[in-house]
Amino acid sequence: MRRIAFWLVAFASVAGVLASTTPTSGHADEETAPIFVTNIPPGYRDWRLISLAHEEGNLHSFAAILGNDVAIKAYRDGKLPFPDGTIIAALHYGHVPSEENDKVFGAPQSFVPGPPTNVQFMVKDSKKYASTGGWGVGHFNKDGTPGTDAQLKTCFPCHAKASRDFVFTRYAP
Amino acid sequence: MRRIAFWLVAFASVAGVLASTTPTSGHADEETAPIFVTNIPPGYRDWRLISLAHEEGNLHSFAAILGNDVAIKAYRDGKLPFPDGTIIAALHYGHVPSEENDKVFGAPQSFVPGPPTNVQFMVKDSKKYASTGGWGVGHFNKDGTPGTDAQLKTCFPCHAKASRDFVFTRYAP
Repeated sequence: MRRIAFWLVAFASVAGVLASTTPTSGHADEETAPIFVTNIPPGYRDWRLISLAHEEGNLHSFAAILGNDVAIKAYRDGKLPFPDGTIIAALHYGHVPSEENDKVFGAPQSFVPGPPTNVQFMVKDSKKYASTGGWGVGHFNKDGTPGTDAQLKTCFPCHAKASRDFVFTRYAP
Repeated sequence: MRRIAFWLVAFASVAGVLASTTPTSGHADEETAPIFVTNIPPGYRDWRLISLAHEEGNLHSFAAILGNDVAIKAYRDGKLPFPDGTIIAALHYGHVPSEENDKVFGAPQSFVPGPPTNVQFMVKDSKKYASTGGWGVGHFNKDGTPGTDAQLKTCFPCHAKASRDFVFTRYAP
């Protein structure tokens, strides 16, 4: 997945920087400190909306970005960095044309979510995920199986380039 | 707005059909029976997600479709027609490129919600809105001012062509 690749580069570079502040190697840090979210946060489909996203390129992806109560409050208060307990969920679907809508509109202009592809999470816990900016990342395929460590390592490198505490998504009012 | 026009045609045709079953004219029906939602339902921004939508053509519009508890339960239970008390909200934004995301991706591929444009509602009340299939419709501009009756009459004609109780949006799991 391009989105997984999107995360990976940043993780490697940030992990390298952080590793340089400790006597152990970056590789050893990765083995001892958890950086990945291994369980799907319960009830995430009932969380409130942060925003939407549409990625083209190789993705053709439609996303709803939802947040738990801590996340929503932080967004609405403009609080940065995000406090511990923040969880942000990205529900990904295909970005597909709607034949029914287009027929009514009379033109090919309507796009809707296709089948779900995966759900990704960012969990803020400044102690547990200290080696990756306080964020743990998770990826779960549509059948609930988690992404591999190799896949998940792709997340952080790009998010490290985001200007607001590793998070790209802004709040849609 | 193209979306307002999208509603209008259907309203006119359905109102005409319904009027033919009564001794009064369609025009008189429209004057005596409320068909429009005149107040913004409180708390709608906290409602849960039904789905997303992206309209091109003349709209370039990104939408989050949220539902109150009655709507979410009906969707999840697959209940049609929607029960009284259902409210569906469409939060519309511009569909705009994200300069920040594209820079990180290295390609122009990322689209996010731009400024809000309007919020539209469908409210199910089979008595109050009996003349329009049980649905009242509302449109509120980004400053909170309501759409005109002429605008709102554009809503129903297209929704009358939807295959599931006047509603186009399907639930995104």
